[in-house]
Amino acid sequence: MGRVTVRRPVRKLTEGGQTRRADLLAAEEPLELRVGGKSLAVTMRTPGHDVELAHGFLLSEGVIASKDDVFTARYCDGVDDQGRNTYNVLDLALAEGVAPPETGVERNFYTTSSCGVCGKAALDAVKLKTRFAPGESTFAVSTEVLAGLPDTLRKQQRVFASTGGLHAAGLFRADGSLLAVREDVGRHNAVDKVLGWALLDDRVPLSDCGLLVSGRASFELVQKAAMAGVPFLAAVSAPSSLAVELAEENGMTLVGFLRGTSMNLYTGDQRVLEPDAMWAVRSGV
Amino acid sequence: MGRVTVRRPVRKLTEGGQTRRADLLAAEEPLELRVGGKSLAVTMRTPGHDVELAHGFLLSEGVIASKDDVFTARYCDGVDDQGRNTYNVLDLALAEGVAPPETGVERNFYTTSSCGVCGKAALDAVKLKTRFAPGESTFAVSTEVLAGLPDTLRKQQRVFASTGGLHAAGLFRADGSLLAVREDVGRHNAVDKVLGWALLDDRVPLSDCGLLVSGRASFELVQKAAMAGVPFLAAVSAPSSLAVELAEENGMTLVGFLRGTSMNLYTGDQRVLEPDAMWAVRSGV
Repeated sequence: MGRVTVRRPVRKLTEGGQTRRADLLAAEEPLELRVGGKSLAVTMRTPGHDVELAHGFLLSEGVIASKDDVFTARYCDGVDDQGRNTYNVLDLALAEGVAPPETGVERNFYTTSSCGVCGKAALDAVKLKTRFAPGESTFAVSTEVLAGLPDTLRKQQRVFASTGGLHAAGLFRADGSLLAVREDVGRHNAVDKVLGWALLDDRVPLSDCGLLVSGRASFELVQKAAMAGVPFLAAVSAPSSLAVELAEENGMTLVGFLRGTSMNLYTGDQRVLEPDAMWAVRSGV
Repeated sequence: MGRVTVRRPVRKLTEGGQTRRADLLAAEEPLELRVGGKSLAVTMRTPGHDVELAHGFLLSEGVIASKDDVFTARYCDGVDDQGRNTYNVLDLALAEGVAPPETGVERNFYTTSSCGVCGKAALDAVKLKTRFAPGESTFAVSTEVLAGLPDTLRKQQRVFASTGGLHAAGLFRADGSLLAVREDVGRHNAVDKVLGWALLDDRVPLSDCGLLVSGRASFELVQKAAMAGVPFLAAVSAPSSLAVELAEENGMTLVGFLRGTSMNLYTGDQRVLEPDAMWAVRSGV
């Protein structure tokens, strides 16, 4: 779509002086998701992979569980002031028999670049129940593979490299190879895109791989992983308290502060394989 | 409230071995905001400063513009399984004559830890119009003061220091002093809290100060600043394309990648004062 980056003039100041140059910015544009013509959500996202984003979002929200649950996905009447299609409105038709999300006249739900719990009418509805069983997965990864993941992800972050402004999410196999990587100004969108990719590729439930995210692990990201059947979430930065609780509840593995060979295991240790020779047990601090 | 951090056991692996210890996590809990008893939004937030958060959120959404627009704010009936109040439901009564947000039976809106455009029914409604005039502010800051801001902010991030898991937002004066700093698992919440603090302290519109954020500058953060009349947004990381556009449209100053004496000026250069001696003009790259 050619709009993942936008060029803008910028003045860069340093102690040595200033330079004027064109800076590449991560593109951010609203995307309105509609289901059956009804407005469901507006998210601020980086254009591109919108169909994946929509599928991943509906998967995360528990509306769909396979690509067959969606009949069509098409862009509609979003036009700019010159009458050109902005590709900012995407309408999905669900397959026969798939219950539409609870919107109707009583409620719409809305999302943004980092939004994951949109659409729950009250606190007790924040938690969604996954129809898969991530806790039963026997997927496991060695600490050696884990240590190499952030570098592998970073190398595939094409837009980040040019803008410094994007979050990334990737699905990894036990051997450390990445199945797919997606970037977005919103970390939830990056996750939705990568999960949507997997759904469209008939890989859900994702019981035999892990999800790696470039930032922190929040409640919503753990929930998205659980809804797609992913048993393992690895984050480069800190998890929140609720992220750890939800991972534990679902029998998932949560690794945080994954930085080189240093990492924190919060839950589901059995999926992290430690070479005996390498990791000598020492007493705690 | 004593719940800004949560203690959890963790296994830390490094090349040298492993340690078991108690880790401090940034607390994340849902907060349901109600206006006049009607559910308006659910946000995943770090407990504490909830009343400020609610005020800042309503200010950002254009519902209120002064503390007099809110009659009362009180916690209500959110109880845990032992029947104790969780302080996770906050109900605000608006003052007489203040139009409630558009919810009613037709729509609710929802927010999460990083949610800012929730509640706009369609793409063309994403942009809110501020009732203040940030573009007319004569507020200005020297590059020297700007260079010192991230360090000043970091020193006041008490919870970040212990968890590594929080975003921060601070309001700064031209001399570099910080009026208030708030932390949250969600960067939008941190901004809402600090703007809510200002509203409750009768400082809105904030035409004589700037807003500093620990992460990236998104569309929503620029919008929140504009809605509170803040003329200057400084971000430690990258801005998005829409953030720069909106700042320009509102006549605001946007500084990104503020890292020590290096910074990028995207819009509103007139509010950045450069000592002639220090910043020699050099030709661009």
